[in-house]
Amino acid sequence: MSGQILCKSISCADSSGKMCFHSFNRRAVLPSDIHIKIRYSGVCHSDIHCGKGDWGKKIYPLCTGHEILGDVIAVGSDVKKFKVGDVGGVGCFVDSCRECEECKEGDQQYCSGTNSNGLSGFRGTYAHKETEKLVPGGITQGGYSTDIVVDENFAVKVPESLNRPEAAPLLCAGITCFSPFIQAGIRPGMKVAVAGLGGLGHMAVKIAKKLGAEVTVLTRSPSKVESAMAMGASNVVVTSNEAEVKAAAKSVNLLYNCISASHDMVFYLSFLKNRGTMIVVGLPPEPIANLKAGTLAGRGLSIKGSMLGGMKSTQEMIDFCARHGIVSDIELIPATPEAVDVAWERTMKSDVKYRFVLDTAATLGQEFDERAAKKAKLS
Amino acid sequence: MSGQILCKSISCADSSGKMCFHSFNRRAVLPSDIHIKIRYSGVCHSDIHCGKGDWGKKIYPLCTGHEILGDVIAVGSDVKKFKVGDVGGVGCFVDSCRECEECKEGDQQYCSGTNSNGLSGFRGTYAHKETEKLVPGGITQGGYSTDIVVDENFAVKVPESLNRPEAAPLLCAGITCFSPFIQAGIRPGMKVAVAGLGGLGHMAVKIAKKLGAEVTVLTRSPSKVESAMAMGASNVVVTSNEAEVKAAAKSVNLLYNCISASHDMVFYLSFLKNRGTMIVVGLPPEPIANLKAGTLAGRGLSIKGSMLGGMKSTQEMIDFCARHGIVSDIELIPATPEAVDVAWERTMKSDVKYRFVLDTAATLGQEFDERAAKKAKLS
Repeated sequence: MSGQILCKSISCADSSGKMCFHSFNRRAVLPSDIHIKIRYSGVCHSDIHCGKGDWGKKIYPLCTGHEILGDVIAVGSDVKKFKVGDVGGVGCFVDSCRECEECKEGDQQYCSGTNSNGLSGFRGTYAHKETEKLVPGGITQGGYSTDIVVDENFAVKVPESLNRPEAAPLLCAGITCFSPFIQAGIRPGMKVAVAGLGGLGHMAVKIAKKLGAEVTVLTRSPSKVESAMAMGASNVVVTSNEAEVKAAAKSVNLLYNCISASHDMVFYLSFLKNRGTMIVVGLPPEPIANLKAGTLAGRGLSIKGSMLGGMKSTQEMIDFCARHGIVSDIELIPATPEAVDVAWERTMKSDVKYRFVLDTAATLGQEFDERAAKKAKLS
Repeated sequence: MSGQILCKSISCADSSGKMCFHSFNRRAVLPSDIHIKIRYSGVCHSDIHCGKGDWGKKIYPLCTGHEILGDVIAVGSDVKKFKVGDVGGVGCFVDSCRECEECKEGDQQYCSGTNSNGLSGFRGTYAHKETEKLVPGGITQGGYSTDIVVDENFAVKVPESLNRPEAAPLLCAGITCFSPFIQAGIRPGMKVAVAGLGGLGHMAVKIAKKLGAEVTVLTRSPSKVESAMAMGASNVVVTSNEAEVKAAAKSVNLLYNCISASHDMVFYLSFLKNRGTMIVVGLPPEPIANLKAGTLAGRGLSIKGSMLGGMKSTQEMIDFCARHGIVSDIELIPATPEAVDVAWERTMKSDVKYRFVLDTAATLGQEFDERAAKKAKLS
């Protein structure tokens, strides 16, 4: 179709998750679309689960990445929020039905309607079916790429101060804690615990702190105590230390549980005061063990599941982070298949402090072209 | 001690739960106390669990009952809220530390402080340790009795229109749904499901309806359809009927789960819309099975444990029920050991629509005296 945009990417070649260079077309800019030249793209653990087919069979090559930051280089005729030269951000989804109760109330992440392509729920930034008439047979492709075209309603305006690689992870990790924190009404003086100090957890510490909470970090790793304090924690409990655990029993109003591995959730409930809430955002593979309804009822405890955040909340999060200078702690890596392969390996081993970000604009296009040229020469 | 009040009761003789007549002394009326001559006392399933020692070893004879309604016949010198001639109600607890965060915020049911007697949490209306200096070695005794002496802060003023046996169950069953309903912000148009149409559930239907909700009842018993509709339900789903279950999937904002038997909680979550909340007040013996954190996170679902309600909320509940003419559906029974034995047997088999209430004032004192006289004659 005319006006389509050739896009270079790093994509999973197959369900092994091994990366390759791959080019594909983005749709032509529609009246309500913006075209973002991607600068930075964060690496989320979900990319790995999805890329390796843990969450169902995928079509390859598949370009993952849903923490996307870049320059708006073109806007459709109906676009109101952006102009060329702005910085735009794209998170975990790029469309939703826009008509269901959840969408109308700004919770597009819980869209319960049916998209024009027959898909139920939101359209993920990658690996979801595209609108058939726009991209026949196509699926969405994510942010480990040079360009993205997205409806302006599914992009956020990023203040210039956040035009840096450390801001990319806000688009997923940031909103995943900001949204439930705002819903829970975190206010000065409230005691909040964060369980699991990884990509999500370290953002949760920073954001809860700036919302005024007194933050306790619960971690298995004594090695993380120092950095947790540096991020704003007032207290760190090493969960293997019985005395520390005992001292922190029933001490917090809210516990943000972002542990993705199997873990004893009832143990973490013990840190809540009566009437406290545990927010769960992780996706441990096993069912919750040994949780009795009476444990919740007797102390008035809640377990609240939460996923991402809506577009309005995402914009508020970005503005909040800009105002308070909150960004992620990252390792910036070149956008090459080799570097991403290593990043994924290390992410799976939790060997990253605390997020990998691809230096896309600086490296992807150039590297892609050089290798293509080399390949052409060889053949 | 001087001024103590001789009280006649029906009490568990031992952990078999079999009833006997038993008399004991209530404490003398303290400056902040009121003395209630009990008219009616509801039979709650908790009475049975506690009386039979299911929740720990008890001291016998034990007088249970925590849905107490009666006439205020004396007040202490400092009492402000009551005067002689008022109708007073007592629910599930008769004291708390009054100083912890929860007590100060009116949630005495979650008291996290330590009472003057060294007991943690609230003081239950029966089977809890009494203040040592007031009742040396004593434990609290409940409402299957002729009299109760209680601090005015732990009694509610009952409007004259509710001076009837059908109102007694409000003190436990009523508040157990009213409190979480108010917290959840039930408002007109909201869709609320009630799972389990027993003593608690039938109050939940009536209260949710008068709060403006559209109520769906989820029940295993086709025989309850008619009465559920009569109580105000707009819809009844018989949970063994696949078509009805399917039609009601993802249809409610709030689900009040008061099922006390083991049940599939994940099945009941399926009735919630995205972002919905299940309130759990029942105490099934088994842990919740097959619940994954991802099931909650992916749809933004919450499980909120709740127990009873605070004193302020209990007063609001009573006033609300008086305003809207809400009372329980009951079977009034004489206050004799034989009748209570049968009532407990039938309650255990869920063979009651929907609550037994003892006609205490009319029968307990007289029957007690006649039998005592007969016994004296025989010996």
